Amino acid sequence: MQATLTLKEGMHFVGTTDNGLEASFDASRDHGGTGQGPSPMQMMLQSVAACSALDIVSILHKRRRTITSMAIDITAERADTHPRVFTSMHLHYRIVSPDATNEEVRRAIELSQDQYCSASAVVKRSGCPITWDWELAEA
Amino acid sequence: MQATLTLKEGMHFVGTTDNGLEASFDASRDHGGTGQGPSPMQMMLQSVAACSALDIVSILHKRRRTITSMAIDITAERADTHPRVFTSMHLHYRIVSPDATNEEVRRAIELSQDQYCSASAVVKRSGCPITWDWELAEA
Repeated sequence: MQATLTLKEGMHFVGTTDNGLEASFDASRDHGGTGQGPSPMQMMLQSVAACSALDIVSILHKRRRTITSMAIDITAERADTHPRVFTSMHLHYRIVSPDATNEEVRRAIELSQDQYCSASAVVKRSGCPITWDWELAEA
Repeated sequence: MQATLTLKEGMHFVGTTDNGLEASFDASRDHGGTGQGPSPMQMMLQSVAACSALDIVSILHKRRRTITSMAIDITAERADTHPRVFTSMHLHYRIVSPDATNEEVRRAIELSQDQYCSASAVVKRSGCPITWDWELAEA
């Protein structure tokens, strides 16, 4: 994998992947940012949820289940001292589907968290536990 | 820290931070994505560079050095088997400054990588080494 990160102005950086996709990063306002994008740790947090989200979509689609809507609420705690790594993370999966069962959703999340999700594995191997739960509503 | 990730369509998710900043994530094209944003692991990779980049800007500014331009080239290797974690990462810092010395730039990167950069610390604690070098040009 390759990417390049380039300073635009102030603390605003734009990342460009080797396939030409862009993302903006900025410092938080209390560290000199001007709201041009999420902070790097906000982005890392969301990467974990996005990585797992793609697994869930993929697994449920392979089982021919319909996902009407899906969202993940992510919360994390960080260490008080530098480097301020994640110390705990929780993912709350919210799925609306007309045909997926609770057991299918639970199993999809479990497969993602225990086997497939690369970003979750990086965080867990760093020593930060990831907990999760879910709610499933019928479409 | 809090954020919410929401499915838009297909494999395209939008993350929204608790301070209202958005970022798009998508699966790679060979996994059903349509190029609406970087993949989660591309974003995690860039988070590491952005986290360190903000440190460097902050440290050099505290030393009253001018940064004319700055970019980081990031490369990473990943495991062949699931979960496909990062196995090595390299950051090449490119800085143009009229007044910063090579030693000041080297020291700024070292402080970031060894003490301050939260995202780099997460990756290193996961077992993935991060190497780095830099080039400094006069403005």
